[in-house]
Amino acid sequence: MAEEFTVTPWEVTGDIDYDLLQQRFGTTPIDDALLARLSGYGELHPMLRRGIFYSHRDMGALLDDYDKGKRFWLYTGRGPSGRTHLGHLMPWIFNKWVQDTFGADMLFQMTDDEKFLFKDLTLHDTASFAYENALDFAALGFDPEKTRILVDTKNVNLLYPIALKVSKKVTFSTAKAVFGFDNSTNIGQIFFTTMQAAPAFLPTEINGEETPVLIPCGIDQDPHFRVCRDVAPGLGYPKPRMMYCKMFPGLSGADKMSSSDENATIYTTDTPKQVKKKVGRAFTGGKVSVEEQRREGGNPEVCAVFKYCFYMFEGDDRRIEEMAARCRAGEVLCGECKQCLTEKINAFLEKHQARREEAREVVGQMAMNGFEW
Amino acid sequence: MAEEFTVTPWEVTGDIDYDLLQQRFGTTPIDDALLARLSGYGELHPMLRRGIFYSHRDMGALLDDYDKGKRFWLYTGRGPSGRTHLGHLMPWIFNKWVQDTFGADMLFQMTDDEKFLFKDLTLHDTASFAYENALDFAALGFDPEKTRILVDTKNVNLLYPIALKVSKKVTFSTAKAVFGFDNSTNIGQIFFTTMQAAPAFLPTEINGEETPVLIPCGIDQDPHFRVCRDVAPGLGYPKPRMMYCKMFPGLSGADKMSSSDENATIYTTDTPKQVKKKVGRAFTGGKVSVEEQRREGGNPEVCAVFKYCFYMFEGDDRRIEEMAARCRAGEVLCGECKQCLTEKINAFLEKHQARREEAREVVGQMAMNGFEW
Repeated sequence: MAEEFTVTPWEVTGDIDYDLLQQRFGTTPIDDALLARLSGYGELHPMLRRGIFYSHRDMGALLDDYDKGKRFWLYTGRGPSGRTHLGHLMPWIFNKWVQDTFGADMLFQMTDDEKFLFKDLTLHDTASFAYENALDFAALGFDPEKTRILVDTKNVNLLYPIALKVSKKVTFSTAKAVFGFDNSTNIGQIFFTTMQAAPAFLPTEINGEETPVLIPCGIDQDPHFRVCRDVAPGLGYPKPRMMYCKMFPGLSGADKMSSSDENATIYTTDTPKQVKKKVGRAFTGGKVSVEEQRREGGNPEVCAVFKYCFYMFEGDDRRIEEMAARCRAGEVLCGECKQCLTEKINAFLEKHQARREEAREVVGQMAMNGFEW
Repeated sequence: MAEEFTVTPWEVTGDIDYDLLQQRFGTTPIDDALLARLSGYGELHPMLRRGIFYSHRDMGALLDDYDKGKRFWLYTGRGPSGRTHLGHLMPWIFNKWVQDTFGADMLFQMTDDEKFLFKDLTLHDTASFAYENALDFAALGFDPEKTRILVDTKNVNLLYPIALKVSKKVTFSTAKAVFGFDNSTNIGQIFFTTMQAAPAFLPTEINGEETPVLIPCGIDQDPHFRVCRDVAPGLGYPKPRMMYCKMFPGLSGADKMSSSDENATIYTTDTPKQVKKKVGRAFTGGKVSVEEQRREGGNPEVCAVFKYCFYMFEGDDRRIEEMAARCRAGEVLCGECKQCLTEKINAFLEKHQARREEAREVVGQMAMNGFEW
């Protein structure tokens, strides 16, 4: 059973075994030694302490360089295929922590081309989602002086020459093996990975000297960056360094929050009433009766409500442990936890939605080379 | 034997049977009826009268539209992989005639991305060749108000959104069948045809209404435009209309002048001395002795010197017939013809080289959206 899951940049299904996935992809665990080293730069983010960002490539080299005074850039992104949900925010919040901790310049790529090629969307659709998603990104408080948003179709003049260099090093054989393409794949999809590789090399082009990037993102993106890392040395670019997180869970108990399940997905623009309703229906694995729950306790490991607190909405480790312990002991009922999470999410969204409005000015400032949204 | 030739956008080898090629590609002969119709718009260009532009797609539809007042744009191009030779000029000269005759706006695409992907060249090399080639193009006297030069890496912001739409409609299967790609083809090469398709649809995007293009070019480019025409209706664009010419011959007697054979190739920047030397070595098929030549006559069909006059350097039909007749009758020796061609080419190049210098200003004006060369 453990093998029965799929994780690619375009499909995440099944019960993900994250350790096995790490083995399959060949990434390295973020272990205690690395955590100890990272804690030397600032208080560890909860997503590190809790193993949500759990895997990496070349973080040792990144920190060695940093310690010698070599700056790195941050790079992460978003495929604008719909409204922003909480799962999208999770790695961005972590990126913000890295920017604050290391003072890093940041590139945020919006792959509107990808979503046009892989989904039943027009370029008009993806442009509109890109703007909406960018508001959520900017609302998280990235430094506008140090942060630039790239939209692929608007910044293609910067990205295309790099993408060409990458593409000259990647055969169809490789693309087939890495992404599972076949003869029915369209030729835009086949080319696309080169556009996702390009921002990893852009800081070196901009600075005129070798400038490594750190890419904190979902582990589902590793296939792209394996290709990107493979071609880097041959092109005279540093390999990007990676930090990978697990997928943000769905309210239904699925391993990944997905826009295709609207009721199990909380969008950043949801009203308090919508949040209440959605959290109210969340999967908790709770027992069939109050008596049984009191007697046997619940199971936080399977509970979406607990996972939400663990991943994003309860930063205090002691409280999270207490929450789990009280659940297992039958001291708390699912309704209470749902009520508590609803309040936390709504408090978060109230602030976020206000900042999101203010971000309309900021995204103009962040537009790479001043493109028009 | 007749089947033993290859014509693709990247390879032209063997003795080309142009009628057979037309059958293979499924294009339509430019017949007497079409020539008669075309002569109603202005004196037929020698390349039409002599069957050098010999095949087409949808010229009837183009002229029907034109007669109803619907304007078309011209589109042709150049892959900047080296210096310009006479063979490159040939279809451009014909394009100039079409622009003058029909008052058409013109797009000239320089596929620096293609040459980077398919040759052992850097983007720096292709940029420099693009500029040099553009000077030759502009030197031919295209109307600077009606002519725009696109360089793919510099105008990719205009081309990429259209290329994406094309790419979504083309599978790897199709690309394999049309271009002969396989698993070892790089993913930039696989994508490239979409960039060559894009300018065919750009006039419709620019004008906001269906605007057909006419693409006069070498018949080796037909594979690209078959794909382009196939996807057009599904994207709401008019199919490009095509006029195809034969390949300009090499001085060695080969069917196509090629930069890989430097001695059989006359570049636009050659000196009179170089031209004299190269023409002096041209293949004529002349007899081994003066006596034999006088007695048996020569064979203009195989003679590179005659072909040069026929293709480009003798516009007067009576004189060209006379030249062939005198050769066959043994009235003229190869040395005389070589001398005559050398003078014609040098007279042409003297003017061309002067205009080429003046074109340094014009190519700035023609740069699409004012890109910096």
